Amino acid sequence: MSEDIEKKLETIPKAIFFDEKEDRFFILDQTKLPVEEVIEEQKDLNQVYDSIYMLKVRGAPAIGIAGAYGLLISLKEHIDRPLDEFIKIVEQNAEYLNSSRPTAVNLSWALNKLSKIAKNFPKSSSSKELYKAIRDEAIAIHKSDIKTCREIGENGAELIKEGFGVLTLCNAGALATGGIGTALAPMYVAWSKGVRFKAYSSETRPLLQGARITCWELNKFGVDTTMIADSVSSYLMKLGKVDMIVVGADRVANNGDTANKIGTLSLAVNAKHYGIPFYIACPYSTIDVDTKTGDGIVVEERGAQELIYIKGQQIAPKDIKVFNPAFDVTDNSLISGFITEKGIIRAPYDFSKSAKSE
Amino acid sequence: MSEDIEKKLETIPKAIFFDEKEDRFFILDQTKLPVEEVIEEQKDLNQVYDSIYMLKVRGAPAIGIAGAYGLLISLKEHIDRPLDEFIKIVEQNAEYLNSSRPTAVNLSWALNKLSKIAKNFPKSSSSKELYKAIRDEAIAIHKSDIKTCREIGENGAELIKEGFGVLTLCNAGALATGGIGTALAPMYVAWSKGVRFKAYSSETRPLLQGARITCWELNKFGVDTTMIADSVSSYLMKLGKVDMIVVGADRVANNGDTANKIGTLSLAVNAKHYGIPFYIACPYSTIDVDTKTGDGIVVEERGAQELIYIKGQQIAPKDIKVFNPAFDVTDNSLISGFITEKGIIRAPYDFSKSAKSE
Repeated sequence: MSEDIEKKLETIPKAIFFDEKEDRFFILDQTKLPVEEVIEEQKDLNQVYDSIYMLKVRGAPAIGIAGAYGLLISLKEHIDRPLDEFIKIVEQNAEYLNSSRPTAVNLSWALNKLSKIAKNFPKSSSSKELYKAIRDEAIAIHKSDIKTCREIGENGAELIKEGFGVLTLCNAGALATGGIGTALAPMYVAWSKGVRFKAYSSETRPLLQGARITCWELNKFGVDTTMIADSVSSYLMKLGKVDMIVVGADRVANNGDTANKIGTLSLAVNAKHYGIPFYIACPYSTIDVDTKTGDGIVVEERGAQELIYIKGQQIAPKDIKVFNPAFDVTDNSLISGFITEKGIIRAPYDFSKSAKSE
Repeated sequence: MSEDIEKKLETIPKAIFFDEKEDRFFILDQTKLPVEEVIEEQKDLNQVYDSIYMLKVRGAPAIGIAGAYGLLISLKEHIDRPLDEFIKIVEQNAEYLNSSRPTAVNLSWALNKLSKIAKNFPKSSSSKELYKAIRDEAIAIHKSDIKTCREIGENGAELIKEGFGVLTLCNAGALATGGIGTALAPMYVAWSKGVRFKAYSSETRPLLQGARITCWELNKFGVDTTMIADSVSSYLMKLGKVDMIVVGADRVANNGDTANKIGTLSLAVNAKHYGIPFYIACPYSTIDVDTKTGDGIVVEERGAQELIYIKGQQIAPKDIKVFNPAFDVTDNSLISGFITEKGIIRAPYDFSKSAKSE
C-alpha cells in the first residue's frame, strides 16, 4: 500500500492514545460524542476504573487495551518499591480494574495476561524491569489489535465496489477497538484506496451508538455517510440503495449463528428478502467453538429505563412494560460470510474444523 | 354486545370531546403525552388553528373532526348577524382552518362539507338555523367516524385469539380518530370481550408515536402492553411471541400496496419470513382506487433535525446527512388482509372491482 494511503489511515479517529515517550495514557471521552470531542488523560487507577465503568471508553477490544494501559500507569508511582510489594500492587490493581466491567471478556483477558507476567517474574529482578515487561505487553496487546483490525479491513475492502451503498448498525468502528475497527475497517481501507461508496449508519436504539459514534467517526474521516432510523433499513433496501451490509459480532457460535447488537437479525432477514449480501466482521477470537449453535447463547436483557428515557427526557409512560434485549442471534443461513483477519469465511460454517486445520 | 362491554369501551381514551348541551369543544393535548394529561377547551378560531398546526390533535380522522367542531365554535359569537354575513364568516373561517395542515385530506374534506352547507343554505333562513345545520353535520361526521372505527374493531377482533401476541407500529389508535381507532380498534374490542392477549407497541422513531401515544392509550385502557425499540421486532418474532401484526395505513393503492409509517415494510418482510399474519386496518376511504400500485405513491421525506435531535437533545453530528422518509410502501404480496368497516378483504386485491360490485 502506498505511503499516502498509510498516512490517510493514520487519521482515523482513535479511542486510545499511548505516549511511548512519557508513558502517558489518554482516551477520547465517548460519552460526550458527538456534541464535544474531549481527550482526557488518565492519571490514576480510580480515574481509569471510572472511565471504563462510565463507558467513556467502550467496545470489547478497546476496553481490554484501556485496562492494560490503565494498569500500567497506576504502577508508575510504585516503581521504587521492592519487587514483592510491587507484584502485590500489580495484582490488586488488576483485580480492581477488572471489576469495572466484569462481563467484558477482553478486559479480564488483558489484565490476567499482565498479572501472570508479574506472578511469574524472576524474583531476582527489579520492579523497574517488571514495569518494563508489563509495558511491553500492554503495547503488544494494543499493536496486535491494530494489526487484526487492519487485516479485517484489507480482507473486507475487496467486497466494497465503487458506487456501493454499505449499511451498518451500532458501532464496530475505530472507537470500539485500538485500531481501525472491525465492521468499519473495510470501509476505511476501501475509502483510503479511493473507492467511493455511500455508508449508511443505522442509529441503533436505545443507546444510539450508530447515531452518536459511527456517524461521528465516519463523518470525521470523510466517508460519505448518511444516518437512518433503524426502521428505515428495509425501505432503503427496497429502493436499491444497499449493496452490502456489514456489522460486528459479540459472539459467534461454532455453526456461524451470531449474537450482535439488537436489530442485526432484522437487517439479515431483510437482506435475504432483497438478495443483499450480509457480512459479519470480527476478529477470529470472537468465534466461540465451544458454543455449538446460537441456542447456546444467553441474550442479556436490560432495564426499562433505557427505553423510557432518552438523555433524561421521558418518551413513554413511566409504568409501561418494556422488552429490551441488548442483542439478538442471527441464524447462520442469513449470513453471507465472516470477514476475519484470516480471510473471508463462507458457509457451510464449522469453525472447530477450520481452527483445527490451521 | 352486553351493556358491560359497551360501558368498558366507553372508557377508551379520547382525542376529542364535544359537549352537546353547551356546544363546548375540548381536545386532549397530545404533545404533552405521556408526561401530562391535559384536556384543553378550544374557545376560538386561532386556538383551534394552533392546536391542529402544533399537533395537539393529530391523525387524519381526528383532524377532520377537530376542524368541523373548531369551525362550529368559531361561529357561536356571530349567530346574531344577518345570514349573508354569517355565511361569509363560515367560508372565511373554514378556509383559514384548512390552512393549518394543508395536506391533511380529512381536514379539507370536513371543512368543504360544512362550507357547502352554508353556501347552499336557503336565503330565507336564519343564521341560527344555519348554525344548527352545521352543528348537526359536525356531530354526524364525528358519529360516522365512531361507527367506522367500531366496525373495524368488531371485524378485526375475530382475528385475535386468547394468548396471542399482537404487534403494532406508530399510533392508529383512539387518539388518531374520533372513535376507538383503526389498528388498535380490534385490540380494544377483543379485550373488552374478555380475550386476553399481549400487545406490543414498537416505539416508532423518529417521532415516537408508538412510545408516546400508543403505549399511553393501551396502558390507560388496561390492555397488557409491552414497548419495544423498532429494531427488536424481528427477534420478538423469532422468539415466537408475535402471532399477528396489525398497523394502520395512510394510503392504499388499488392493488393493495400500502403506504404507512416508516418501519411498516420491515415488519411485513419479517412477518413473511416467520410466517406471521400481517394486517392493515383502515377505513375504506383510505383506499385510493385511482392509484394503481404503490409505485404511484409519493413518499414524503422530512428534515434531518427530526432525527439529529430528540426533545432538544443532540444525538448525532449536526452536519450528518440524513435520510428521513415519513412513510414506506409495503407490497401487497406481504399483506394478509385489510380490516375495514366492510369486513376483512383478502388477496387478490383489486379494490376498483370490489367497489363497483357494492
